[in-house]
Amino acid sequence: MAAAEPGRITLLTDFGFADGYAAAMRGVIAQRAPGVMVDDAGHGIEPGDIAGAAAALARYWLEYPAGTVHIVVVDPGVGGSRRGLLVRAAGRAAVGPDNGVLTPLLESPGPVGVIEIRNAALFRHPVSATFHGRDVFAPVAAFIAQGGLDDDVGPAVFDPVRLPLPELVATPAGFRGVVTGSDRFGNLATNVPARLALGAAEVRVGGRSVGRVRETYSAAAPGELLALIGSGGFLEIAVRDGSAAARLAAGRGVVVEGTAGPATMKAGR
Amino acid sequence: MAAAEPGRITLLTDFGFADGYAAAMRGVIAQRAPGVMVDDAGHGIEPGDIAGAAAALARYWLEYPAGTVHIVVVDPGVGGSRRGLLVRAAGRAAVGPDNGVLTPLLESPGPVGVIEIRNAALFRHPVSATFHGRDVFAPVAAFIAQGGLDDDVGPAVFDPVRLPLPELVATPAGFRGVVTGSDRFGNLATNVPARLALGAAEVRVGGRSVGRVRETYSAAAPGELLALIGSGGFLEIAVRDGSAAARLAAGRGVVVEGTAGPATMKAGR
Amino acid sequence: MAAAEPGRITLLTDFGFADGYAAAMRGVIAQRAPGVMVDDAGHGIEPGDIAGAAAALARYWLEYPAGTVHIVVVDPGVGGSRRGLLVRAAGRAAVGPDNGVLTPLLESPGPVGVIEIRNAALFRHPVSATFHGRDVFAPVAAFIAQGGLDDDVGPAVFDPVRLPLPELVATPAGFRGVVTGSDRFGNLATNVPARLALGAAEVRVGGRSVGRVRETYSAAAPGELLALIGSGGFLEIAVRDGSAAARLAAGRGVVVEGTAGPATMKAGR
Repeated sequence: MAAAEPGRITLLTDFGFADGYAAAMRGVIAQRAPGVMVDDAGHGIEPGDIAGAAAALARYWLEYPAGTVHIVVVDPGVGGSRRGLLVRAAGRAAVGPDNGVLTPLLESPGPVGVIEIRNAALFRHPVSATFHGRDVFAPVAAFIAQGGLDDDVGPAVFDPVRLPLPELVATPAGFRGVVTGSDRFGNLATNVPARLALGAAEVRVGGRSVGRVRETYSAAAPGELLALIGSGGFLEIAVRDGSAAARLAAGRGVVVEGTAGPATMKAGR
Repeated sequence: MAAAEPGRITLLTDFGFADGYAAAMRGVIAQRAPGVMVDDAGHGIEPGDIAGAAAALARYWLEYPAGTVHIVVVDPGVGGSRRGLLVRAAGRAAVGPDNGVLTPLLESPGPVGVIEIRNAALFRHPVSATFHGRDVFAPVAAFIAQGGLDDDVGPAVFDPVRLPLPELVATPAGFRGVVTGSDRFGNLATNVPARLALGAAEVRVGGRSVGRVRETYSAAAPGELLALIGSGGFLEIAVRDGSAAARLAAGRGVVVEGTAGPATMKAGR
Repeated sequence: MAAAEPGRITLLTDFGFADGYAAAMRGVIAQRAPGVMVDDAGHGIEPGDIAGAAAALARYWLEYPAGTVHIVVVDPGVGGSRRGLLVRAAGRAAVGPDNGVLTPLLESPGPVGVIEIRNAALFRHPVSATFHGRDVFAPVAAFIAQGGLDDDVGPAVFDPVRLPLPELVATPAGFRGVVTGSDRFGNLATNVPARLALGAAEVRVGGRSVGRVRETYSAAAPGELLALIGSGGFLEIAVRDGSAAARLAAGRGVVVEGTAGPATMKAGR
C-alpha cells in the first residue's frame, strides 16, 4: 500500500506562528510518515477566512508535483457536523474540512474524486473536538502521502461544499465581474480572465476608471492606479509601489467593469 | 558517536520573519548536520514572552517522534549569567536558555535529565553576546540530533528554572484555577483538567458565568461564550466564531471557577 | 551538469503568509529539483523594503554551507526593465532582482561573479509580468542548486545595482556612522565596526548619550538604553527588555557618533 517513494505534504492554516498548533500537525506527520517532506504554505490566513484560504490554495496547488497532498485547515466548524474531505484532482490531493476551502480542486477541469474522511483507525487518539488538524487531517494526509488508498479513508461524497462562484457577465459591450480578494501588497484580484480584460477600452473599479489594462506595474507612475493581468491570468487592480485596497478602500465583492473596445495591448508576459 | 540515522530539529523563537535571525540558525544546522530535517515551530512568539513559548512548546513537543531535538530561543537574558540547558525527557530533547521556557519537558512525568551547556568546543565562534541561538543552541542541537553524548555537552544541573505552576484548587464543591494564556483565535487556555471541568454545573471566568462545559464550538450560537475541553485536555473558554480574550478583556492570570454538580456531559472527543 | 548531491535553497520575500505566493515558488522548486531542501528564510520583509531584505540576507547567507542558493524576492520593479541576477560569492549563490537586494554578496571580499538571468528556456511559462519569483527566480535557483552552469543562465554583468554604503567616518577623535536599520526587538543596527566602537569613551545616537559600549544586555538595568556589539560584529543600540527604536523614535539614517577614549572594555563574546 505504501508508494515506492515518499511524498510531499503542504500545510495552509489560520493558526499563526505563536501557539505551536502547526508544529503539532508537523509532529504527527513526522511520526507517521518520517520520510515525507512537509512545506509550510502559510499559517497567516485570517482566522476563519475560508475564501482567503481557497484563494491562496488556488495559487500553489498545481505548482507542486503530482502526488503532493495539500492540507488546508481553516475550520471554524471543527467538532460539529461538518464533514472532513479528501479530494483528488489533477494528480494532487487535498484534505480539509468540507466548508468550501478546497474549492480550487473541486472546480478543477478533469475528473475530481471526493471522499469523506471516516475511518477513525487512521486518526490520532483521543480525537479532540477543537483540533482536527492534528487529530484527523494530518494523519490522513500522512497516510495518503505514503500511498494509502482512498477506500481505506471513507466513502465517496457527491455534494461537497463549494464556495459560490462570484458573478461574471460578459457581453459584446464589455464585462462585469467582482474583486475576489486582496493580497499583502493591496493588489485587488478579480474573477475577470485575461481574454476579457484585454479587450476593454476602459476598466472601472467601484465606479472609478483605471484606464486600459497595462503590461506591467512600471507602465504606471509611482502611486498611480492601474489595471494589469496578475500571475494567475486574471485582471488585477494595483497601485504602483502602493496599495490599491487602501487607495480605493475596496475589497472582496466590489464590482469591476470593462467597456469593450479595440484590443490594442497584449497581456504582460 | 553519530547515530545511524539523522534526526530532526524544531525551532521556536521570538525572532519574527523579517530579520534573518532564524535563517542564521538554520544555516548553522545545515553546516553541521546536513542530513537533519529542520521544522519551523514558529517565530512569532512575542518578544521575551517566556510563558507563551512554554505554552506553545507544550502543544507539540510530544507529538514529534522520539529523537527529536526542540530548540526554543526566547532569551531576554542572553549574554548574561543565565545558563544554557539541554533537557532530556520522554525520548525527546530540548535546548534553550535556563529561564523557564523548557518547563514542559522539566515537568514531564518519568525521568528527566538536565545538562548545562558548557563545552565551548561545540559552539560557533566567535560567540556573540546577543545571539546564542546561532552560536550556542543551534550547534548543540545539531550535535545532539546526530547522536552526540550529553557528557560532551556539560555537567548535570539539579535546579533548572521552572515557570511557577499556576494555582489550582479542587474541592468537592468545585474548582478554582486560572487562565494560562490565549491563542490567535482568542481562546483562553486554563490549568483546569477535563476530569475536574466536566463535573462542573457552572463555569465562571473573571466572575462571569459561561454555563456548563459543552462538547464543541457548534454547541454554542455564533458569538456566544462557551466552555469546552481544548485539544490539550484542559478547560478552555471560547467565543464561537469570535475571540473570548477580546470579549472578556481577559488573559493570563484571570480566575476560572467551577461549581460542582452532576456530571451529565462528556468531553467532546 | 547535475551535481553529485542535491543542494539547498533558501527563500526570503515580502510575500507574507496568507496569499500562497511563497508556496507557489516552493512548488516550482519541488517540480524541478525534488531532492533539494528548501528553507524559508522569512517572508515578513515589509513590502518593497529592499534595504531590509539586504540586511536580513547579510545575517544568514554565509552561515549556510557552500553550494547553497539564496533566493531573495523583494521586487517592486517586477515586469519592468530591471534585470534578474545570479550572483556567486564565497561558494554560495543568490538569485533575485537587480535592485540592490543582493548587495551582501556583491560586497563580499574575494571573487564575485554576476550573471544576468536571460535564458528563457529555464523559466516557467507563461512568464507573468507580476511574479518573477515563481516564473524566473525559483526555476533558475532549482537549476543552479542541481549543478547548472552559469553559462546556461546568461551573460556576465559588470554594473549590478548596489545599495549605497552608509557613510562612516573614523578619526583619531572618534567616529561618525549611521543607524542602518532596526530589528523586531527594536535594536538599532549601525555601520560602526566593533574595533571602532570599542574605543569610544561615549556613544551618542541622534545626539543622545548612551555611555560606553557594554558587554551584554544584562550590564544595563531593565529599561535602560545601552550600546553593545551585535551578533554581526557591529555597534548596536538597545534597550534592555525593551525597544531602542521606540524609545528614541530612531531608525535608518540616524547619526551615531563616538568620542575616542581609552578602550577599557572588550566586546562581549
